[in-house]
Amino acid sequence: MENPFFENNGPFELKDILKDLNLENNLKNEYQNIVDIKDLQNSKLNEITFFHSKKYKAAANITKASFCITTKNLENELPKSCLPILVDNVLVSTSIVTAKFYPESINDDFDTTVNNIDKTEFNNKVKCGKNVLIGQNVSIGANCLIGHNTIIEKNVSIGDNCSIGSNTIVRNCLIKNNVRILDNCVIGKHGFGFFPTQNKNLRYPHMGIVIIEENCEIGCGSTIDRGSMSNTIIGQNTFLDNQIHIAHNVRIGENSIIAGQVGIAGSSIIGKNVKIGGQAGISGHLKIGNNVEIAGGSGVIKDVPDNSKVMGYPAKNIRQFLKENR
Amino acid sequence: MENPFFENNGPFELKDILKDLNLENNLKNEYQNIVDIKDLQNSKLNEITFFHSKKYKAAANITKASFCITTKNLENELPKSCLPILVDNVLVSTSIVTAKFYPESINDDFDTTVNNIDKTEFNNKVKCGKNVLIGQNVSIGANCLIGHNTIIEKNVSIGDNCSIGSNTIVRNCLIKNNVRILDNCVIGKHGFGFFPTQNKNLRYPHMGIVIIEENCEIGCGSTIDRGSMSNTIIGQNTFLDNQIHIAHNVRIGENSIIAGQVGIAGSSIIGKNVKIGGQAGISGHLKIGNNVEIAGGSGVIKDVPDNSKVMGYPAKNIRQFLKENR
Amino acid sequence: MENPFFENNGPFELKDILKDLNLENNLKNEYQNIVDIKDLQNSKLNEITFFHSKKYKAAANITKASFCITTKNLENELPKSCLPILVDNVLVSTSIVTAKFYPESINDDFDTTVNNIDKTEFNNKVKCGKNVLIGQNVSIGANCLIGHNTIIEKNVSIGDNCSIGSNTIVRNCLIKNNVRILDNCVIGKHGFGFFPTQNKNLRYPHMGIVIIEENCEIGCGSTIDRGSMSNTIIGQNTFLDNQIHIAHNVRIGENSIIAGQVGIAGSSIIGKNVKIGGQAGISGHLKIGNNVEIAGGSGVIKDVPDNSKVMGYPAKNIRQFLKENR
Repeated sequence: MENPFFENNGPFELKDILKDLNLENNLKNEYQNIVDIKDLQNSKLNEITFFHSKKYKAAANITKASFCITTKNLENELPKSCLPILVDNVLVSTSIVTAKFYPESINDDFDTTVNNIDKTEFNNKVKCGKNVLIGQNVSIGANCLIGHNTIIEKNVSIGDNCSIGSNTIVRNCLIKNNVRILDNCVIGKHGFGFFPTQNKNLRYPHMGIVIIEENCEIGCGSTIDRGSMSNTIIGQNTFLDNQIHIAHNVRIGENSIIAGQVGIAGSSIIGKNVKIGGQAGISGHLKIGNNVEIAGGSGVIKDVPDNSKVMGYPAKNIRQFLKENR
Repeated sequence: MENPFFENNGPFELKDILKDLNLENNLKNEYQNIVDIKDLQNSKLNEITFFHSKKYKAAANITKASFCITTKNLENELPKSCLPILVDNVLVSTSIVTAKFYPESINDDFDTTVNNIDKTEFNNKVKCGKNVLIGQNVSIGANCLIGHNTIIEKNVSIGDNCSIGSNTIVRNCLIKNNVRILDNCVIGKHGFGFFPTQNKNLRYPHMGIVIIEENCEIGCGSTIDRGSMSNTIIGQNTFLDNQIHIAHNVRIGENSIIAGQVGIAGSSIIGKNVKIGGQAGISGHLKIGNNVEIAGGSGVIKDVPDNSKVMGYPAKNIRQFLKENR
Repeated sequence: MENPFFENNGPFELKDILKDLNLENNLKNEYQNIVDIKDLQNSKLNEITFFHSKKYKAAANITKASFCITTKNLENELPKSCLPILVDNVLVSTSIVTAKFYPESINDDFDTTVNNIDKTEFNNKVKCGKNVLIGQNVSIGANCLIGHNTIIEKNVSIGDNCSIGSNTIVRNCLIKNNVRILDNCVIGKHGFGFFPTQNKNLRYPHMGIVIIEENCEIGCGSTIDRGSMSNTIIGQNTFLDNQIHIAHNVRIGENSIIAGQVGIAGSSIIGKNVKIGGQAGISGHLKIGNNVEIAGGSGVIKDVPDNSKVMGYPAKNIRQFLKENR
């Protein structure tokens, strides 16, 4: 994935990467440069990838990567052009290497590049409140409003006719036209993804961004986390109420309506024209179809097909739930 | 409803309103001035009202409005003094006309009238933090505290002995004496009400305000939305914990106690001396009686009579719920 | 408990305390000085304590306090060295006396001692954003970051290598090394504890603090309340996701993982290596064992033993829950 938000600190020589993984340097091409890390599909010559589950066998068979972090029992699935680097835990090792290439993708320290908007090119272009801070390389379209104490961090792009509220923080985010983000939101922080280890958890890199499509509205006090390897996406004309939490890698389709205090866990995909009632929760890695209605307070723990109405915890067909709970 | 928060941009001539609704101008009094839009009960001569359901037949029969947005099958319920304006969707048309009279009621752009408090009359009157912003025509009583980075937007009125925390935003709100609003709250934004349409939802106007009665406390990170046609009201001596969401038009009685992360959906009415446990949710348009106790985590989807204790999702009699869930 | 956050306004003469409790002054030692108020175990000579339930009989029998607020039917449990002060409601009276000694423990008015960090000793020591405010007597370790608009209130102590986000408020809190607190949090406000009374609730004092141990991460928009008589503690290497609410007196063990929008009610004790899924709620005064897993959306209303996995509302064994809810 190419994006302006996370600078690639590479290339690195193979021997440096092996050293970081505490591996013996018994490979012949130890001085070869590795230029980037990507997933199996997208990686190319002189890049490194990772392969941790048979589920991805088909992609592994034809990867164009020159190197692959993997395990003993998976290495035979790789083409000859790809040199396996054998480790005990593929995801932990991948995390270490990704953090080497993209060190900024594992933290969320505040943006030190910001300036008060009145010292930037946007001074007379954007209608803005007091104490607005703008990072380097930000772009803002025509006819935008930015409220008091709001922080737009480096590289963020905002379309035309957008209104950002007060006390809001936007980072690692691409905002299309006619979007409204209300007060006290935090958009684009890293997801809640890490490898639990005793005494000091290891952060998983989050190189994805948040994309908010045209005509969306994001309510007060909401948080939308950026993706890890892919992006978090809010579809066109989708409205979020207050105090909603959207985790990393979630994708929500267009024309959806999500009421207050809803939470959607990591990597779930929500369809078009979906309505979700207040306080409902959706577990991670699920697929919610188009035109689905989820009643307020429901807890969804499995996929929901198109055009269904569900309710309850665990969520089931709404008629069945109401019949069982008269 | 008369309030200082939303300026009436009228009067408008009847022909201008018909044009906005894409209606043919076949009425004789096309140049007549219409001065305001109100509901059936409160509208008067030279004002326009709306009538969309037989439920409101009694009020329609005696409305004093000169004009009424309604449908073919309802028009006969209006008195002769009231000229029907026939449309396909009464609420959408009403929304368009209300937005014409009160354009500020459909957005929540930041208040551009604010000044740093040290440049206002409150400089030596209010004990305040750094970077406090005060809008035009704000009133603040005796012996008040306002924390750092807090924004009190135009026309807000604050009583005596109030303490507002830091990083809080208050707009379209009337705060009585001895109220404490803690940090990071957003009080008075528009409710989550709109007409869903493909590609570009149509905002419903929110001309109501938030009224917080004496001796209330509002916890950190809470959001209280203003009403659409009526007001959102927090009754005297009612305490809200952290991260609570109160939607538009909700009214909560006096001496109630609401624990953390509770959500109350639009237009529900909560009685006096009500106790609501943490994370409970209450659906919209419900009536919760006096002295009701709702257990934490419950999901209330129907009215609850006075003096009841309920639990579960859907919430039912607490004894029955605990018996069924041993 | 001794801490630098709440100054003891004592000593007070016994007669002043009796007057505040509306008690007749019929004790002989009315001019005796009382220097502090503590619980039964920790109070000493010339201090006052309180005893309101037979549950604490053992501690009452051997208290070293010179005075004890209690009731007629409990007074015989006190040693002869301890003079009973008889009241109708022990907790209300204790609240009144505690507030007399520690008036700042009942409110959360903003910190008036803060200065912009560039006017403090931390100007060149801490890497900080714009508009950072630092209270009196704050200590900050080496290699720390503090984001824009963040407020570190008086007496707060921050260890080495910590990163505090933007728009965050920290008060009454002790932060150890390598802690990350993300944006828009409020750490250390008083708990939601008070004595409900008609028209004007009476605040219970909160003299405890928040302690965040090494290597923790606290997600955006979270609130952690300080303790009343004891402390609220987040154990080492415990990670909290966004929009979490931790109530007063809660203690969470080390290496725990708590997903988004979870709420933990007052005085519950959570073990080590505990995993709590998104939106789960835990009632107050519970004990959750070590290595427990609580599924997202669950409502826990009773103790959970070590090594259990629970789900549902009310939460029960996860296998049983899933079997009953196929």
